[in-house]
Amino acid sequence: MSHLYRQLRIHQIFGANTDVGKTIITAALVRASALKNNNVFYLKPISTGAPLDADDQHVKRYAGPHHHLVDAHCLFRYGDPVSPHLAVQMASDKSDIKLTPASDATFVNAIAEYIRRCAQTRQSGHMYVETAGGVHSPTLSGTTQLDSYRPLFLPTVLVGDSKLGGISSTISSYESLLLRGYIVDAILLFRDQYYRNYEYLLSYFAERGVHVTSLEPPPPRLDNATEDIASTESYYAKLIPRNFDSEIFCTLRHLDECHSSRIEELDSMPRRALDTIWWPFVQHGLVQSEQDVTVIDSAYADFFSVYNSSSKPPSPSSSLLAPQLDGSASWWTQAVGHAHPSLGLAAANAVGRYGHVIFPQATHLPALKLAERLLHEGPGRGWASRAFFSDNGSTGMEVALKMAIRSFSVTAMDELTPRDKKTLGIVGLKGSYHGDTIGAMDATEEGVYTCEWHQSKGFWFEPPTVSIKRGNFTVSVPPAIASSMSAVKFDDLHAIYDIKKRLGSPLAATYRNHVRNVLQALDRHGEQKLAALVLEPIVMGAGGMIFVDPLFQRIMVDTVRDSSLFSNPLPVIFDEVFVGLYRLGFESLGPVLGVDPDISVYAKILTGGVLPLAVTLASERVFQAFNSQSKVDALLHGHSYTAHAVGCQVANTTLDLLEQLSQHDSWSAAREKWVCEPGSEKIWSFWDPNFVHSISSLDIVDETMTLGTVLAIKFKDNSAGYASHSAQALLRSIKTSACDGSLSSAPGGAPFGIHYRTLGNVAYFMTSLNTPRDTIEEVENRLWRVLSRTPVM
Amino acid sequence: MSHLYRQLRIHQIFGANTDVGKTIITAALVRASALKNNNVFYLKPISTGAPLDADDQHVKRYAGPHHHLVDAHCLFRYGDPVSPHLAVQMASDKSDIKLTPASDATFVNAIAEYIRRCAQTRQSGHMYVETAGGVHSPTLSGTTQLDSYRPLFLPTVLVGDSKLGGISSTISSYESLLLRGYIVDAILLFRDQYYRNYEYLLSYFAERGVHVTSLEPPPPRLDNATEDIASTESYYAKLIPRNFDSEIFCTLRHLDECHSSRIEELDSMPRRALDTIWWPFVQHGLVQSEQDVTVIDSAYADFFSVYNSSSKPPSPSSSLLAPQLDGSASWWTQAVGHAHPSLGLAAANAVGRYGHVIFPQATHLPALKLAERLLHEGPGRGWASRAFFSDNGSTGMEVALKMAIRSFSVTAMDELTPRDKKTLGIVGLKGSYHGDTIGAMDATEEGVYTCEWHQSKGFWFEPPTVSIKRGNFTVSVPPAIASSMSAVKFDDLHAIYDIKKRLGSPLAATYRNHVRNVLQALDRHGEQKLAALVLEPIVMGAGGMIFVDPLFQRIMVDTVRDSSLFSNPLPVIFDEVFVGLYRLGFESLGPVLGVDPDISVYAKILTGGVLPLAVTLASERVFQAFNSQSKVDALLHGHSYTAHAVGCQVANTTLDLLEQLSQHDSWSAAREKWVCEPGSEKIWSFWDPNFVHSISSLDIVDETMTLGTVLAIKFKDNSAGYASHSAQALLRSIKTSACDGSLSSAPGGAPFGIHYRTLGNVAYFMTSLNTPRDTIEEVENRLWRVLSRTPVM
Repeated sequence: MSHLYRQLRIHQIFGANTDVGKTIITAALVRASALKNNNVFYLKPISTGAPLDADDQHVKRYAGPHHHLVDAHCLFRYGDPVSPHLAVQMASDKSDIKLTPASDATFVNAIAEYIRRCAQTRQSGHMYVETAGGVHSPTLSGTTQLDSYRPLFLPTVLVGDSKLGGISSTISSYESLLLRGYIVDAILLFRDQYYRNYEYLLSYFAERGVHVTSLEPPPPRLDNATEDIASTESYYAKLIPRNFDSEIFCTLRHLDECHSSRIEELDSMPRRALDTIWWPFVQHGLVQSEQDVTVIDSAYADFFSVYNSSSKPPSPSSSLLAPQLDGSASWWTQAVGHAHPSLGLAAANAVGRYGHVIFPQATHLPALKLAERLLHEGPGRGWASRAFFSDNGSTGMEVALKMAIRSFSVTAMDELTPRDKKTLGIVGLKGSYHGDTIGAMDATEEGVYTCEWHQSKGFWFEPPTVSIKRGNFTVSVPPAIASSMSAVKFDDLHAIYDIKKRLGSPLAATYRNHVRNVLQALDRHGEQKLAALVLEPIVMGAGGMIFVDPLFQRIMVDTVRDSSLFSNPLPVIFDEVFVGLYRLGFESLGPVLGVDPDISVYAKILTGGVLPLAVTLASERVFQAFNSQSKVDALLHGHSYTAHAVGCQVANTTLDLLEQLSQHDSWSAAREKWVCEPGSEKIWSFWDPNFVHSISSLDIVDETMTLGTVLAIKFKDNSAGYASHSAQALLRSIKTSACDGSLSSAPGGAPFGIHYRTLGNVAYFMTSLNTPRDTIEEVENRLWRVLSRTPVM
Repeated sequence: MSHLYRQLRIHQIFGANTDVGKTIITAALVRASALKNNNVFYLKPISTGAPLDADDQHVKRYAGPHHHLVDAHCLFRYGDPVSPHLAVQMASDKSDIKLTPASDATFVNAIAEYIRRCAQTRQSGHMYVETAGGVHSPTLSGTTQLDSYRPLFLPTVLVGDSKLGGISSTISSYESLLLRGYIVDAILLFRDQYYRNYEYLLSYFAERGVHVTSLEPPPPRLDNATEDIASTESYYAKLIPRNFDSEIFCTLRHLDECHSSRIEELDSMPRRALDTIWWPFVQHGLVQSEQDVTVIDSAYADFFSVYNSSSKPPSPSSSLLAPQLDGSASWWTQAVGHAHPSLGLAAANAVGRYGHVIFPQATHLPALKLAERLLHEGPGRGWASRAFFSDNGSTGMEVALKMAIRSFSVTAMDELTPRDKKTLGIVGLKGSYHGDTIGAMDATEEGVYTCEWHQSKGFWFEPPTVSIKRGNFTVSVPPAIASSMSAVKFDDLHAIYDIKKRLGSPLAATYRNHVRNVLQALDRHGEQKLAALVLEPIVMGAGGMIFVDPLFQRIMVDTVRDSSLFSNPLPVIFDEVFVGLYRLGFESLGPVLGVDPDISVYAKILTGGVLPLAVTLASERVFQAFNSQSKVDALLHGHSYTAHAVGCQVANTTLDLLEQLSQHDSWSAAREKWVCEPGSEKIWSFWDPNFVHSISSLDIVDETMTLGTVLAIKFKDNSAGYASHSAQALLRSIKTSACDGSLSSAPGGAPFGIHYRTLGNVAYFMTSLNTPRDTIEEVENRLWRVLSRTPVM
């Protein structure tokens, strides 16, 4: 991940094209840095072309008449002056030994290793990392440079193109850099007096706050080698005068300032955040120290790059930025890792084509395609006919509630008094959570999350739950349902999720009677007319990662639709905001339960973990309840940014990526591990079954459970609940990195800490849908090491 | 705006760099199109370099031995082979006549005019518009090509770069194209056998769904002109064989398919939208025809580019896409026009650096900077100490309500019974609207917008209002406040908004007594304890663009803070979601009322009309009400995407743009018109005062009012209210374009329709903060023409 050292300033040099003078300008920077008495490191990770002409030779030769160039180094060298990916192939063709192109990880780790070594050798100075060709020239693996170097997140100097057409390639290259999130500290280019690109670019980039410097172009190359060297040396001597009076020194000063002000800013951020931010779900009274603030400088794939005052490096040779695994998938949003270039391009493309455009009675391609996709090929397949857009899971659920309640009111109109209509309630489960807006909260029980205006509207069943307890696959039945059996053991998880088979079991009959009796009693009691069933299928997230017995949820659905019980069946809402779109390994949970809802809601993963958007899907029957000739009957809910093109386009791209991932080997491999017998491929997890079992058998652990990307560990704790800090306390040590000397799977190989969230006495860990197996394994090993050594409290 | 003709396929040809063979490849496409018996038009808008070598000459010479090249044309020609912006300057230097660089509008209008003329000349065929240099080479005005051509939104062919470094420039150019929203139908490049860029690019773009074709490179240029022509001719003859058997014909077929499938898709969109979308605030029972659906193909600045089945062109020579002014600023969100490149780049940069990263106890630069800016330099200046992020205006208001109610409960704890706490209510105004979630709705009266679960929690005063009635500046006082005076006239608007002066007026005393008496009576009655004052300062938007008498709002604030009346002052919430950030010409409305709130909310304009984000600002006192040592006392509200980096970064860029705009001449010019006497610059509007007066005097108009970007026209209608369709009916004709022969101010000069929204009998129009004066004037003229001719109903 990112490298940042207090005393060692590092810049990577990208070129707006090949042959724009990248090496000359880098050599000039090296010489200027050296003349200013800095230790200087020059790294050219890949060099192609004749060895004698190699860039590191050039830099060494003209580094100046002093001895501050500590090292000029090249990691991968190929003779053919072609693009690196081709050079590998050509070198391979010429040799008996077949070369394997270096993978992106090898490449990044080699650079990271070099940087670490330099930081240890000399703790202060300047380092210049010169890339090859243009910004998007391929590296050895074939990945383009901008994407290859991105995990290192080094600040950038762009060498502009001074030739005809160079204005264009300079601006385009700059835009490609910004698209990958890079910091561009300066643009340098030659002062070509005919095309005068520098004049244009100076003013273009001044408007954008980017520092541009133009430099005298180099002399023409001379045929006589000695003369050429003399002429080049005199060029450098003039460009970098001993009195420090030239443009290059301004640039140097500017780069130094960028470096020190970046560190100052990072230093200041914890204090500034503590002074201005009001965090969600945070008791500020308990967060007063700068060390409590996670400063996220950037993020890449599964990792944050954090600057944490609590982890102030013991020595100046440690990077100020360290990788930290995003262990909660950033509050359950991440699907394909942070900073995915396809999603950035999708977002930018939608802004460029539309911005946001008004949606009522209007349509645009990104929204229309997303709606059709979710309805016809996605979770709405087979039952949903309409897509309603809103801004997040909570608003999506408010829309769902408005739909369900109206839909019920319209069908049950004859039986409802005006008072009934105002007090219609929902049926749900204790532990439900549907979002933070007050209406969504009203669809749950009163609890710690609810505010003064909260008013529970409905009835909530206590749910039987699924877990692995001391290695046993267990359904725990609460006494309210069946006092005689508190735990039912199963041979494997598949048996628990084989609803079809279980529908005929004695437990099913017990559930059926319980649900029926309770609902009938409520109806007789008559205080509140029930109008909808609202479920988070399979897992209740915010309630504490509660894995509900799917059989119970199935029977709830069947019961509220039983016409012998309800003259008007209750509409069923599936809140799939958290559980849907493969979070639990399934596109949607209806097929797992074996029933379709009337309404369902999607958000979080929907937009690939980039920005908020929600879609509420509804059946034709629900839609028709609002259909009339009167405007006031319409669903009068709509946010200004409804179906914003950016969110829709990012969602479409995300669904493309999910489709590719669902065919990916890593998914098959994970599935493979969970198969017990043929036909049991249904239930699976990215987490290793043996690990989950082992953890469940520890004395401090009450139970564990996993599906898809989610791992939940419930600790034994008498003071359980949201206010409990036991899980936090137990796991504190995994937040900071532990170095065992080996390379980690974080990009660059640095040891990583794990950022995690807890819900009282439940710790959970959540991966993206493309987190590599080795990263998950490191988390498993880390958890095992910490938890297996913890004595029982 | 966009041009799209059923029979005439148009592509613009961009180059990944200069000298990549753009003209040769375009000539090949021209020749192939012609050989396939299409009428072909070739346009090179700007040509630089020797006239005899000019690209149009080349295209003409090698168009082939048939006569289908209808025209090869150049609009602006300069002799120096440099970037166009420099060519203008050089030509100017050489000549006695000083040339003015063509403005972007002139440039776009000239191309649009050429396209229109060609479409009339030959109604079918192919047109190729060849750009100059690379994608970002400057045009005559200095704006780069991608931005200059963007209003025309023509589908694009990118000519790739086959030389060393060309992989990079091709990919970068492609990304810059996508950033501006362009459709890239194909990439063509030469088949260089040494660098083999085409191999790499073919597979790179195949993954991204883009068609890549490689072509045989041209022969070397020969010194002998005759031989050179012969050799070139034979090259083209081979590239474009008479048997149609070559790659170029595959490309041709592909481009034809892209064109026809785009039109087919547009044709299908109304039906598909009617079949799948559930629109917000739309009664689907009243929207059943394809003609009722606005298909937005793209948007630019203040205009949508719409394809509307209702406006099927009368002749094949009319463009299928027409500009339509976004007259509601896309539900009040737009600030700087659609598709602003800075905002696209900001969004992409945030995705590239962070994606979304978890926020509780964490911080990142975009969120921190936005918080500090709003608190210290923005609307929170002087009173707010904390920024809480959420997803949209409605959630921002729910947060504000939770803050206010808790803050009141904590200070008034000793006086509140548990029942009191559950029924705390708010004070507001009739006509208020704070968003669509149920909690935000509960802070308003029951009405058409509210759903079954709605429960009004509070008391709402009937407001005195400000308007221009038959040319008179009037405050209308409802009988509940003062039966003796229903309308108070003022000399000018400034006098109405001079609160300081008016606080001593008899009307102020009347207001004060009324507010005090009502609140005291409510308190004595004791049914509901009041806990907060909630106001949309100055204008209530969704309630019907009601301009409230600012004096009344000021007195409400003063009263709820009066310690002689309330032992615990009520916290005051300003809902500035719609009115703030210059929508009404002011950054925030506190200074207009002369008081600061305790809590205020911002959204809509905040993110430049691109995507949703809200910020709730709070005073230190409010923040401290949640501060303790217990987690359950915290504000337990937080959306997954809280403070998403994309929204924050776009917001920061928007605030930069607003700062620039607020210094802009167009704002001073608008302000100037509204000045009555020195010192009265405070109140102003983008709309012309004379126009607003004149409209107010029409017989069908009840009253008008304007501030900042907002113009409201209330029509006389006995059946007023949300269900009324009178405003819709009166203005229907302005939705479609009316051509009076002159060029409009829409990019390209085509006549434009006006997309507008109404609220019952109120029509409103809303500009962006950078809408040019001539566009506003056209709307004024159009409104005047329609309304002044409408007889009284």
